[in-house]
Amino acid sequence: MLIDVPVVSLPRVVIVGGGFAGIQLVKHLHGKFQVVLIDKTNFHTFQPLLYQVATAGIEPDSIVFPLRKLFKGYRHFHFRMATATGIKRNEKTLCTSIGDIRYDYLVIAAGSDTNYFGMEKLMANSMPMKSVSEALDLRSCILQNFEKALITSDPGERERLMTYVIAGGGPTGVELAGALAELKRHVLPKDYPELDFRQMEIHLVEGAPRVLAAMDKISSEKSQGFLEKLGVYVWTNMRVTDYDGKTVTANGEKRFETSTLIWAAGVSGNTLPGLDPKNARRDGRIPVDEFCRVKETDSIFAVGDIAYMEEQAWPSGHPMVAQVAIQMGKLAAENIIRSAQKKTMKAFAYKNKGSMATIGRNKAVAEIKNWKSQGFIAWMIWMFVHLMSIVGFRNRVVVLFNWVISYLNYDRGMRLIIRPFRSRKEQKEHGSNQ
Amino acid sequence: MLIDVPVVSLPRVVIVGGGFAGIQLVKHLHGKFQVVLIDKTNFHTFQPLLYQVATAGIEPDSIVFPLRKLFKGYRHFHFRMATATGIKRNEKTLCTSIGDIRYDYLVIAAGSDTNYFGMEKLMANSMPMKSVSEALDLRSCILQNFEKALITSDPGERERLMTYVIAGGGPTGVELAGALAELKRHVLPKDYPELDFRQMEIHLVEGAPRVLAAMDKISSEKSQGFLEKLGVYVWTNMRVTDYDGKTVTANGEKRFETSTLIWAAGVSGNTLPGLDPKNARRDGRIPVDEFCRVKETDSIFAVGDIAYMEEQAWPSGHPMVAQVAIQMGKLAAENIIRSAQKKTMKAFAYKNKGSMATIGRNKAVAEIKNWKSQGFIAWMIWMFVHLMSIVGFRNRVVVLFNWVISYLNYDRGMRLIIRPFRSRKEQKEHGSNQ
Repeated sequence: MLIDVPVVSLPRVVIVGGGFAGIQLVKHLHGKFQVVLIDKTNFHTFQPLLYQVATAGIEPDSIVFPLRKLFKGYRHFHFRMATATGIKRNEKTLCTSIGDIRYDYLVIAAGSDTNYFGMEKLMANSMPMKSVSEALDLRSCILQNFEKALITSDPGERERLMTYVIAGGGPTGVELAGALAELKRHVLPKDYPELDFRQMEIHLVEGAPRVLAAMDKISSEKSQGFLEKLGVYVWTNMRVTDYDGKTVTANGEKRFETSTLIWAAGVSGNTLPGLDPKNARRDGRIPVDEFCRVKETDSIFAVGDIAYMEEQAWPSGHPMVAQVAIQMGKLAAENIIRSAQKKTMKAFAYKNKGSMATIGRNKAVAEIKNWKSQGFIAWMIWMFVHLMSIVGFRNRVVVLFNWVISYLNYDRGMRLIIRPFRSRKEQKEHGSNQ
Repeated sequence: MLIDVPVVSLPRVVIVGGGFAGIQLVKHLHGKFQVVLIDKTNFHTFQPLLYQVATAGIEPDSIVFPLRKLFKGYRHFHFRMATATGIKRNEKTLCTSIGDIRYDYLVIAAGSDTNYFGMEKLMANSMPMKSVSEALDLRSCILQNFEKALITSDPGERERLMTYVIAGGGPTGVELAGALAELKRHVLPKDYPELDFRQMEIHLVEGAPRVLAAMDKISSEKSQGFLEKLGVYVWTNMRVTDYDGKTVTANGEKRFETSTLIWAAGVSGNTLPGLDPKNARRDGRIPVDEFCRVKETDSIFAVGDIAYMEEQAWPSGHPMVAQVAIQMGKLAAENIIRSAQKKTMKAFAYKNKGSMATIGRNKAVAEIKNWKSQGFIAWMIWMFVHLMSIVGFRNRVVVLFNWVISYLNYDRGMRLIIRPFRSRKEQKEHGSNQ
């Protein structure tokens, strides 16, 4: 079966993924190519705020934006909601769940997903948070834990339900731990006056010697300080090695009793079958040259989280963050235009605009070039940058309004179990997740 | 197993259901009783706007409100997320999914659910819209239909995917039909320029001789006119009798080819086992006396949709609407207080504050006492009344903001398939609804 899009005189670029890189590509290729965008959802997700969806701070609908709406009125643009399943390189064809499509240029911008490094028990029992539906599952799971803690007569079970272990001390883990700590401090005790919140423990477990290891040491130290001030237990040089649904094992010996392990300790690229297997990397990322072109191809590009580009400044690839994806998306669009015009392509040069993470109310760390800031100013910058990066005016206003209301009331308004979460075990026993 | 709530010197009222009636009861009984509220969700739902969630106009999180947050700081108040399963009258005990609980007074305010009048094929194949998750399923289903219509090569299937049949011409059916017609007119053609929207048909099928049969004739006529102006086909004196997933049969002979039948043609009370079976009604409503007390009991009350009270002015019970629920909730609270004080109880006297329905932009019908209005003024009143009735300041602001943006841009922003909808058949074949 073929995906039915009109044949026009323009060459066709097929893009897999409507994330940060994908939307840049569509914008910059518009008018010069026929563009076909494939995504498994019909919306763009602003991933940096998923943790606020998971912790009841904002509604999911405000951090996503319909892809069709985003590209409304674009000529020679076609969106198809589908999953890419493979590449037939010799036929210049992408295979998807709804049929095949020929391309002149193919861009793989499929992003990354949670990586459990092959630990199946961990995967079966822990909560990931890489998509809106996973963030909503986590929101339901957290709230259900407290409803369950209220009705159990087993003190051990109650403690497990009120204990959270987060594996991974990168920005996601740090921001989640901070948000959970604020729920514990300001919100949940009012909702559950019958529970003793001294029992609620939040553990952040990081394999490296410090949290936010990609940032400067001062940021790591400060954010660990902020977390500890909020009551989070921070464990560094510690790797989660096993979890059976009740007990987390770290470094093979340390144990945490918990019913909720949130896994933010690794991601891997959403790679596609059909590329040269000798280039395959274990982490699913696709090796590309300095032009974002997949090695040993001339019409396939890979950008964003999924692209692995070795550079002198980044010997093990660029960080898997939005800024890299945006810049690679723009560059790949430019290089495709140049390639079609038989011009030489441009090499990628990452402009690191800085990085930041928020821990809680008035507490963030930010690094912009050589300027470093911790605390209130960093927090204001964090909010401004994130607000401006959300797609859509309506979304920005609603998120800002939520933040203002939450700030004034020390509250998180979205404490809703709209679709109860069921673990895989429960799903097997009771049927579908409704 | 028992539900564990502290024993205090106050008598205990157990309320089943946190809808319009339930929240009035909690508010009015507060301080005078120990109040235990049971609900299967942890939030109150503003049902009159579910149709806007289903048609991508507003986010679900803005029409629901966490029950724990609503009653924050209430003393001797306990919420439990659970499903009521039965009543042991002799032991004054309510049975629930998480255990039993003794009551001094029990109030059944469990509302109503979709009624298919025993037609199992209809139930298996049509879409209900009585809860937030059902409205979200409908939103996903509608958007998925257009994604599918785009990729099918079968013209018959495409027409079925673009045809909507709504059974039931009450306020829900009328408002849904109008909202779908506006999606067709202003929104979807921009999203799907490749589809021919002359193929999109919306049929509203009503068994009575007119839509909005509970309202005045002028309102029925005007709203039918509004609907037809928007391109909706209105079929009166016609009852849907069968649906196999492809063909709707009405009056045993008329056929509509569609992949989506929305069922808004009947509701029945969410009754509980354990009441006197000789009082049981086929529609699941519970017969109550003029004090909202369940017949032949003295400590069980029923209020709202589930209560069936015969009155001279309402020989077949009161309409199953929010106003009745709110007024019955208040009265039942007062009567419980009076009963505890051994005072005589008050009889219910329904104050009909009017009724209204919106069809689309600037188009609504409203009846307030003897005053009737159709068009723009009615539409403004409809918006004001609904906005003021939504629980929570944040929710009101966000809904108003969505309405303003949608009005200015002729848009519906929430066109998101966050959790794809799968029919029961698909769920059976492919596993859970994720």
